[in-house]
Amino acid sequence: MTHEPLTPELERTVAAAAAAAPTFASAAPRDRAAALVAVADALEAHRESLVETGAAETGLTTARLNGELTRTAVQLRMFADTAIAGDEIDARIDEADSEYALGVRPDVRRMHLPLGPVLNFAASNFPFAFSVAGGDTAAALAAGCPVIVKAHSGHPKLSDATAQVVSDALSAAGMPEGTFGLIHGQENGVAVLQDPRIKAGAFTGSIAAGRRLADIAAARPAPIPFFGELGSVNPVFITPAAVAERADELASGLVTSVSGSAGQLCTKPGFVFLPEGHDLDTAIAAAAADIPEHRMLGPRIASGFADRRDEILAADGVRVIADGGVRFDDDGQGWVTATIVAVSLDDFRRNHEALIEEAFGPLTIIVETPAGTDLASLLPEFFAGNLTGTVHLSAEEAAGSTDNRADLAALVAALSQQVGRVLFNGWPTGVAVTPAMQHGGPWPATTNDSSTSVGSAAIQRFVRPVAYQSAPEALLPIALRDDNPLGVPQRRSPAGDSKTWGDAARR
Amino acid sequence: MTHEPLTPELERTVAAAAAAAPTFASAAPRDRAAALVAVADALEAHRESLVETGAAETGLTTARLNGELTRTAVQLRMFADTAIAGDEIDARIDEADSEYALGVRPDVRRMHLPLGPVLNFAASNFPFAFSVAGGDTAAALAAGCPVIVKAHSGHPKLSDATAQVVSDALSAAGMPEGTFGLIHGQENGVAVLQDPRIKAGAFTGSIAAGRRLADIAAARPAPIPFFGELGSVNPVFITPAAVAERADELASGLVTSVSGSAGQLCTKPGFVFLPEGHDLDTAIAAAAADIPEHRMLGPRIASGFADRRDEILAADGVRVIADGGVRFDDDGQGWVTATIVAVSLDDFRRNHEALIEEAFGPLTIIVETPAGTDLASLLPEFFAGNLTGTVHLSAEEAAGSTDNRADLAALVAALSQQVGRVLFNGWPTGVAVTPAMQHGGPWPATTNDSSTSVGSAAIQRFVRPVAYQSAPEALLPIALRDDNPLGVPQRRSPAGDSKTWGDAARR
Repeated sequence: MTHEPLTPELERTVAAAAAAAPTFASAAPRDRAAALVAVADALEAHRESLVETGAAETGLTTARLNGELTRTAVQLRMFADTAIAGDEIDARIDEADSEYALGVRPDVRRMHLPLGPVLNFAASNFPFAFSVAGGDTAAALAAGCPVIVKAHSGHPKLSDATAQVVSDALSAAGMPEGTFGLIHGQENGVAVLQDPRIKAGAFTGSIAAGRRLADIAAARPAPIPFFGELGSVNPVFITPAAVAERADELASGLVTSVSGSAGQLCTKPGFVFLPEGHDLDTAIAAAAADIPEHRMLGPRIASGFADRRDEILAADGVRVIADGGVRFDDDGQGWVTATIVAVSLDDFRRNHEALIEEAFGPLTIIVETPAGTDLASLLPEFFAGNLTGTVHLSAEEAAGSTDNRADLAALVAALSQQVGRVLFNGWPTGVAVTPAMQHGGPWPATTNDSSTSVGSAAIQRFVRPVAYQSAPEALLPIALRDDNPLGVPQRRSPAGDSKTWGDAARR
Repeated sequence: MTHEPLTPELERTVAAAAAAAPTFASAAPRDRAAALVAVADALEAHRESLVETGAAETGLTTARLNGELTRTAVQLRMFADTAIAGDEIDARIDEADSEYALGVRPDVRRMHLPLGPVLNFAASNFPFAFSVAGGDTAAALAAGCPVIVKAHSGHPKLSDATAQVVSDALSAAGMPEGTFGLIHGQENGVAVLQDPRIKAGAFTGSIAAGRRLADIAAARPAPIPFFGELGSVNPVFITPAAVAERADELASGLVTSVSGSAGQLCTKPGFVFLPEGHDLDTAIAAAAADIPEHRMLGPRIASGFADRRDEILAADGVRVIADGGVRFDDDGQGWVTATIVAVSLDDFRRNHEALIEEAFGPLTIIVETPAGTDLASLLPEFFAGNLTGTVHLSAEEAAGSTDNRADLAALVAALSQQVGRVLFNGWPTGVAVTPAMQHGGPWPATTNDSSTSVGSAAIQRFVRPVAYQSAPEALLPIALRDDNPLGVPQRRSPAGDSKTWGDAARR
């Protein structure tokens, strides 16, 4: 693959990001944090017009969009704290050591530095939180990387309006021109992804598009990391004891999780394993009937969902519990309520190729398992990587006092191997923005399961470690100095430590 | 790319690794550490025969191989401590929070889990430390991943002997069968790399081979991370004041660094920027004359070096300071001493395409810079990524009290952008095995500059984070429990913390 020259407009954007990179990287963490907070404040100051623009373009409710804008602002503020706290730069100091096991150890100090300009591909389904000013942008800016966002075609006006707010706030906060840029168009995104000045990419969207971009990033003359969050069907396992304990709560919780945002969430539960004879049909149908019709994000997503839904309904052995349907209005927009179906484990096994692919919309498949089914074995049998896996237990089971304790431990172990987040007695939609969150899992949930796109660890995607050996104080990065004026955590290995390496294991 | 069935022998090896993975992953950190220490002890117990086998196959001196075996054992013991200390699992606990900025936050806990079976491609030039029981193996085992090593064809007998020692020690320490395996042959390595049960690859070697393998890993139906350490020319910058302060020390240090292990080190300084009129020729030639002839690793490496050396000597403007030469014996083995040449900056600029490629052997190119040269600008002009970059300063310059302070800061900043380790007043060969070490840099130094292949952070390549949400104590991994019986560091986010996010930046 050779790199084609960019159009003049793209060249200006990329050149500005590259020019901003060293200056932005060397901004004091507190100044960078203040800029993130300024962006958060500006988004909230423009809340009304942004939400109005977004609602018209996406069909999402203003309640949801207001919540999402708040989430976006909170996320920026969390990353501001992350930048100041300095935990994520992983500062390490090895003291010079004349008694080092391999001779003389020099003074070695290591920390994370920003990668350089990052290209983020915005998602359709979170026009704030995974779009222009979303998590990938907040994480890269917090890391000290200029950001170029490829706008999603589903909300171009909102993208432009948000970009203006972000750019103005960053400028007013004194960040260099080029710290943030916006481009439109899939092929422009591909062209910029191939530019040697771009040092990482991030993406939230479909498996096909994500794989195409990941392949392009890997095939560059100088490959770059590409963090794609792609497809997930988020299996849920509900024990008989949990059904016995709280049938109605489970039925309504499931319907709420499947229907929220018209099911257009990467963490929507796509498969729910329930014991045969669960007797939840009536409660589920009743809960589903209470949910108002919701517009899908756009005509293409709606028709894709309608087709996928038809395929699933046509599969052998599928029983309809709640028949949501898809209604197209005069503008071609699709309106939906929840479709919830059930299938026996035998039929699921027979037809799983027809059933297993994600339906991006408010649909879930209940798989009814005979008593004694080895639930742990179903995961590798049917599923690849997923963002989440959920277990619903009874109070006694959670206490570890039941006979099926070992089976549950095996199920949790199997989930740990195939998902990035294991949940108990909750629903996977609604991802908390918080330091311990993990949003990423084995392929095809993400292209890179060692990373997260939500939570403060998301900053790790956009940094690389650099060590300084025997550096004079005057030339050391400030975070690695002995006097530690930033007060960042420094992990220190004292002289002489290597003399005891291995001893702890012998005790 | 479709996955071909493996040969029966490879299938046995891969199936055993996959079967061992869950058991080995769930071994207590102390037991896994004890197994690593057992391997270290066993290697030292077999020191004499292993070094003898290695010396015959590689031509490296027994002094060097004894040191390298010690390094390999120390490395295993360091990773044993790393596994027990638990710093690298990055345990995080977010307390459940009813006052969370976005509603109610569940209890979320996150840690690193092992990826699964890892395939390591051994290097030619470190038959212990980057081979069968080397750093990649130690790191992956410490992380809890079974390891399959693809032996390097340059030392097959040593590889078999080492593998036997490792396997026996792991078995005796109670680790499951399949925790460690060895295969031979490049095409077998490629076949295993494509197997879906393999979850990561690591490699040390040439750019061409590393790129081929990285492309294969990225093109799998389910791509996996591939950590290749490829080529590096390790530029060194020496100021006029440093030359004035310690000319002889610099000359002999340079020659020692270039000649050690016959120059077959990834951190060998390939380019040295010295001020015009440095007057070091005599001292360099004298130091080079003192170094005994050294056999190269094998005939292919020797003839490749001889060809590359001829190309460099034929380039316009190249002046020979020390003319090492390559002598081939009757077995086709090449014997070398250091070749040190100089070229003016103008000639380097004119001929840099002929000169810039790595010469894998004892050769370095001194580039003579006119007074006033902007050294920082030479880095992006001539170099891509490198493992290391070095600056030699005078004592006054190190103290930050000289007029060229800003130029030196700019040089260090430029190095930080293009290398993984910035050294001062030392030589890049001889990489300390220690928690803050960084051995990895931007392409083509490594395929992935966010990782290191030396030091305790090397474990990070073989893990992925998993979060547990609202998990009952009985089903939580032990490292995430509140009572913390392993005593690992746990980063805790208290309830209510989100209420102040962003405040620190406003102060």
